[in-house]
Amino acid sequence: MGDLSGCRIAWIGTGVMGLPMCGHLIAGGAQATVFTRTKAKAGPLIDQGAAWAGSPADAARAADAVFTMVGYPDDVREVYFGASGVLAGVRRGAVLIDMTTTEPALAVRIAAAAAEAGASALDAPVSGGDVGARNATLSIMVGGDAAALERVRPLLETLGRTIVHEGPAGSGQHTKLCNQIVIAGTMIGVCESLLYARRAGLDAERMLESIRGGAAGCWTLDNLAPRVLKGDFAPGFLIEHFVKDMGLALDEAARMPLAMPGLALVRQLYLAAAAQGDGRAGTHALFRALDRLSKGSGA
Amino acid sequence: MGDLSGCRIAWIGTGVMGLPMCGHLIAGGAQATVFTRTKAKAGPLIDQGAAWAGSPADAARAADAVFTMVGYPDDVREVYFGASGVLAGVRRGAVLIDMTTTEPALAVRIAAAAAEAGASALDAPVSGGDVGARNATLSIMVGGDAAALERVRPLLETLGRTIVHEGPAGSGQHTKLCNQIVIAGTMIGVCESLLYARRAGLDAERMLESIRGGAAGCWTLDNLAPRVLKGDFAPGFLIEHFVKDMGLALDEAARMPLAMPGLALVRQLYLAAAAQGDGRAGTHALFRALDRLSKGSGA
Repeated sequence: MGDLSGCRIAWIGTGVMGLPMCGHLIAGGAQATVFTRTKAKAGPLIDQGAAWAGSPADAARAADAVFTMVGYPDDVREVYFGASGVLAGVRRGAVLIDMTTTEPALAVRIAAAAAEAGASALDAPVSGGDVGARNATLSIMVGGDAAALERVRPLLETLGRTIVHEGPAGSGQHTKLCNQIVIAGTMIGVCESLLYARRAGLDAERMLESIRGGAAGCWTLDNLAPRVLKGDFAPGFLIEHFVKDMGLALDEAARMPLAMPGLALVRQLYLAAAAQGDGRAGTHALFRALDRLSKGSGA
Repeated sequence: MGDLSGCRIAWIGTGVMGLPMCGHLIAGGAQATVFTRTKAKAGPLIDQGAAWAGSPADAARAADAVFTMVGYPDDVREVYFGASGVLAGVRRGAVLIDMTTTEPALAVRIAAAAAEAGASALDAPVSGGDVGARNATLSIMVGGDAAALERVRPLLETLGRTIVHEGPAGSGQHTKLCNQIVIAGTMIGVCESLLYARRAGLDAERMLESIRGGAAGCWTLDNLAPRVLKGDFAPGFLIEHFVKDMGLALDEAARMPLAMPGLALVRQLYLAAAAQGDGRAGTHALFRALDRLSKGSGA
């Protein structure tokens, strides 16, 4: 971890991802000012030495780099464009880094507004989940001005292992959506396969051992299939967040226009899973929705 | 490779898979008698020292182990149950090994008929493709009597790297279908993702580099996505064979009854790909069908 002393950062959003990420930057020597909707959630960071700000604008005021890691696109809009938003406080020359998974078009809009304020903006969503956030092993997909990325690269290298400049503003978001599209496919394949195995009376562990080394091999099979077989549906990654991400990809594709029948179907099945009460279960709880789909509720 | 001298085998079906597989057994010392529909295709094996038989029954007559590796379930039915089929010639005590991907119920039927003839039968479909067949690195998924498997294990170990006993007759086929169900999912996810990347104007290679190490990681992304980006749609595994395998899984699931909406959709899209003329392209040519789906043919 490089020496970040002298770096003045703002961090907005201290949930399951943002909290450990900001913690790494403070541990690396950065002077942080934090804001989050529920102040108590920022407690551990304040204990680490972070200052508290009453609004995103106040947090941004003295910062050279402003990080945002919030929930939904509407939260991002509010945090940047609200009356006390980041753009109301940003310094000239600062770099704004939105690490939320959000709309590529919103990333473009933030970049344009930042430029008007004499600042730069990067969209930099991540993959690797809460484990990657805690262990600083995230993959960070960056869109926006390459020179701005170079200025904040030491900060990003404190948060993740793979930092790739994907292209102009919005490209980080597009890349993250590509990631989610692949996962939607592997997830339905793995869940249907496990369900088939169980109904066919196979020893599913043995089946997994046979297939995981070949063309069916995937992260989901290695990491989530064993949890499905144990009946452990704790997140990992929440179904309600995955539903959001798939919706972003489908909306974006509709504008291209590009039909993605596979992704559309998987999202519908996840909506059913959420409707059945599994919105805050892990994404591999798709198995449970598919299981219920073919199960009698009668005698 | 163990010493197989003294093993008398029959080999039926010498296509892209069967030819190199039988070749490994002969190279290991087995005495082989071969039959295939088009005699010329068995030429390399006869050059290696194999005897030729005029029918599956004749091939089976003196064999301790009878291998079949043909195309479709109807071919398997003909090869086993036809007037000159394997079961008309099988010796008492022989082991019949069907390595074709076929119906689990057909594997059960063959096992019952073999038992009536005083023989044993194993269903032993493989994954690993033509490369795995040539390099003897196949994964072999075996259903049927465990004692019969032990008797032919040295032969199977000459053909593949992973030999797993999955359970009773049909379990090998069920396991292979589980493999294909996962692949259907990874394939639609990867193809839709690549298509999205291209339409969004991303540098797709860079996108792949960002996502392949994480939760989206899969064999298809590593091995087939680069070929898609190069426009190389040569098989690998033929779309028309994959359509067959997905059909087997869906038919079997319908009998359980189990709905598999993901697999059903993917198969429909592959049927479209075949209808468009890509039946003998590789499975990753699903990309091309999806691309055409959202492309204007007008001005």
